[in-house]
Amino acid sequence: MAEFTLYCFAQSGNAYKAALMLNLCGADWRPRFVDYFNGETRTPEFRRINPMGEVPVLEHGTRRLSQSAVILDYLAQHFGKFGWSNDDERREILRWLLFDNHKLTSYTATLRFMLALARTGETEVTAFLRQRSRTALGILNDHLATNDFALGGRPTIADISMCGYLFWPDEIGISWTGEFQHIGRWLDRIAALPGCVHPYKLMPGHPLPGRS
Amino acid sequence: MAEFTLYCFAQSGNAYKAALMLNLCGADWRPRFVDYFNGETRTPEFRRINPMGEVPVLEHGTRRLSQSAVILDYLAQHFGKFGWSNDDERREILRWLLFDNHKLTSYTATLRFMLALARTGETEVTAFLRQRSRTALGILNDHLATNDFALGGRPTIADISMCGYLFWPDEIGISWTGEFQHIGRWLDRIAALPGCVHPYKLMPGHPLPGRS
Repeated sequence: MAEFTLYCFAQSGNAYKAALMLNLCGADWRPRFVDYFNGETRTPEFRRINPMGEVPVLEHGTRRLSQSAVILDYLAQHFGKFGWSNDDERREILRWLLFDNHKLTSYTATLRFMLALARTGETEVTAFLRQRSRTALGILNDHLATNDFALGGRPTIADISMCGYLFWPDEIGISWTGEFQHIGRWLDRIAALPGCVHPYKLMPGHPLPGRS
Repeated sequence: MAEFTLYCFAQSGNAYKAALMLNLCGADWRPRFVDYFNGETRTPEFRRINPMGEVPVLEHGTRRLSQSAVILDYLAQHFGKFGWSNDDERREILRWLLFDNHKLTSYTATLRFMLALARTGETEVTAFLRQRSRTALGILNDHLATNDFALGGRPTIADISMCGYLFWPDEIGISWTGEFQHIGRWLDRIAALPGCVHPYKLMPGHPLPGRS
């Protein structure tokens, strides 16, 4: 029995944020596969585990936590890694976690879901999402032009959160070599951290049945 | 000179979250009007104040904070009101703040912007946003069926955040008397708190020139 159990599936970048943190901290953890594509998160059983109907969910002893940034906050305190040393630093991390949830992951994950998973093709909705996603990526890229990580010199849970959907540039139709090159170099720095593994190798369920 | 300065405008529910908190805490604050509809948040001058290009921004002494939930966190600690008593409670508040930013305000504010301010009429994008907004409202409504406030018996910054865009039901084409009645009763409880004032009366810039 592992110390931590993470409800997750390979295609979820939000679950990846938690899985990556567990791996970077060297935690004793196991994934519990959630069959999202066959509707498991909409079942009454899953809603009892998380009424918000989402992965990730982390179980640690009798504790059960949801929302990726809450899990990251908890693990940062538990392991004493990738966190803050005072309330000002905690709020600076929180600023980026909120930006990620409100503006970066929000639009980028939904765009990628429609293009790569639901395969809607280009629609008014994907055009809307792409424009919003690119605005958020631009803000992050500008910040990383003069900062190695969100908080400057060292990686924190703000970086672990924001990279959640960005290791799949082909699935969102984007490149890290041109306009967003500072994001590309930052992703290289994250990928070089001991314990960093690509989401499709870290969590179960890839590839989807019938897909390559 | 007031103790706190809040960059805001009447139509911003995100700014309202901070303005409402200041008022509920009895803070000595003044609004600094931001001319969003004439492009002020896109100017280089404003980007120096907040590189994310958004209101609210709170100034307190030499401190400058952005992201509504960061401001709420700061004010809760400063005033010792509407906050947490331990890290578990802090994370439970954070769970709702993230849900608000990722799922509730994110879709609801954008839907309302398109319908009431940009006046796009009904499009594929508004249909998409409405469906996502209603899903989030349903999760909140279910929770409030058995809880007076997000954390149960007392109001916290989680409530102050989530109500930000919900005092304009007519502008998002929704009613609080039917399916979402528990949200309606919760909004009544918030409106009854000493210091609670409707956003259009609390912040400058309403009505827009040429509109009623």
